[in-house]
Amino acid sequence: MITQNTKEPRITLVGAGPGDTDLITIKGLIALQSADVVLYDALVNDEMLQFAPANAVKVYVGKRNGDHSYSQEAVNKLMVDYALNYGHVVRLKGGDPFVFGRGYEELDHAAAYSIPTQVIPGISSSIGVPGLQGIPVTHRGLAESFWVVTGTTASGMLSNDLYDAARSRATVVVLMGLHKLKEIVKLYQNEGRGKLPVAIVQSGSTADEQIAIGVVDTIVEVVEENKIKAPALIVLGEVVSLHPKFQPIKDFYAIADKE
Amino acid sequence: MITQNTKEPRITLVGAGPGDTDLITIKGLIALQSADVVLYDALVNDEMLQFAPANAVKVYVGKRNGDHSYSQEAVNKLMVDYALNYGHVVRLKGGDPFVFGRGYEELDHAAAYSIPTQVIPGISSSIGVPGLQGIPVTHRGLAESFWVVTGTTASGMLSNDLYDAARSRATVVVLMGLHKLKEIVKLYQNEGRGKLPVAIVQSGSTADEQIAIGVVDTIVEVVEENKIKAPALIVLGEVVSLHPKFQPIKDFYAIADKE
Repeated sequence: MITQNTKEPRITLVGAGPGDTDLITIKGLIALQSADVVLYDALVNDEMLQFAPANAVKVYVGKRNGDHSYSQEAVNKLMVDYALNYGHVVRLKGGDPFVFGRGYEELDHAAAYSIPTQVIPGISSSIGVPGLQGIPVTHRGLAESFWVVTGTTASGMLSNDLYDAARSRATVVVLMGLHKLKEIVKLYQNEGRGKLPVAIVQSGSTADEQIAIGVVDTIVEVVEENKIKAPALIVLGEVVSLHPKFQPIKDFYAIADKE
Repeated sequence: MITQNTKEPRITLVGAGPGDTDLITIKGLIALQSADVVLYDALVNDEMLQFAPANAVKVYVGKRNGDHSYSQEAVNKLMVDYALNYGHVVRLKGGDPFVFGRGYEELDHAAAYSIPTQVIPGISSSIGVPGLQGIPVTHRGLAESFWVVTGTTASGMLSNDLYDAARSRATVVVLMGLHKLKEIVKLYQNEGRGKLPVAIVQSGSTADEQIAIGVVDTIVEVVEENKIKAPALIVLGEVVSLHPKFQPIKDFYAIADKE
């Protein structure tokens, strides 16, 4: 790079939230307004780039659906290079930087170059997206805890934690797990939980938002009927029964039980 | 109440985030700016009230440390009364409205009066407060999931979910659980996890922020030495070892192991 940098290098990890541009924090907005460079992910709504100065460098470093044009190592390197050459790098990440965002790896890499870093949390989809649909991750009498698990592990296998989660009383939220839905359903069925309410929310908080609601035994069909696509999250737990779309399902099972 | 209401009643549940006024979302800020009434909790930084119009009614409805001057039923009733008489009520809640916030009960009560409601998520302390300390709730190789449990159940007992959480590989975050710390420690010790890293963060994101770091076996002592007070959250898991303050503890155990 051939720029002359007169600014102190620094890096701010900013959580962009689930998608809606107004779901970034004020602190995140202020950081963007002073960015010299913005490195942003696939899950970030690119309308958010308007918050950064017009002359800031904006670089898409997304990786999605196996399109690994930027490896984590490449992102780490770019981030440090830009900070050293341009000054303030805002690393804008979907949701919260530390919820399956590999944010710590980026902080750690910056620390190796003694570049000062700051973290600004974001609304994690795991809580905010069910919430926007009126599904509380906790509710007295239904759930005293919630457990957030990734559907995409480094190995490509289902996370072992999901086997334990399926046995727990917690509301379970699976992020990036739509492609594993059939395996997750089987796992819950093996625990005898075929009637547990499930919601799948696609592109929560954006114009493409869609919800599919059912129970473990029916959710694969409902997802196919509604043509739900990734990015989507899965909520499994009794709290899903509070959603208005669950009412007809409840009525159906009430009738079925009487027959 | 003797006001003449010409405005349509509506209620917006807004998550205020962990404390720092800049950690509210833009959407939450906009809602506050159009509030006729703000009902706010103990865990809300009252500097946030400045975002609401000067002539908006601001009512503290906090309950903390057994000071139940406002029961949940009283809050529900006030909220509806104000909406019917004044128009737009912003119900400002610490963290996220649906993380142990009893937010759904408030929505449900409003629905019974056919008052339109909206939910605006907030930064949950469970993720944001560890994050601001540089502790990621998830990190490759250390945690594929995180589990958030309340330390304060309706019964006053330790949540049953905590017994399962103590056996899991998840990062466990306990909210409102400082007064139960000794019980939680015992529970982890019974699982043979006395050496598991633990962090306690008091008043995360505010001027009163303090952190205590240790392992299960030492954390009670560290909390007493540092005079950590509620509100505080507890993080239990290997991810805590990434905090710089954990380094001397790691070194100590490395030496102890060699002896």
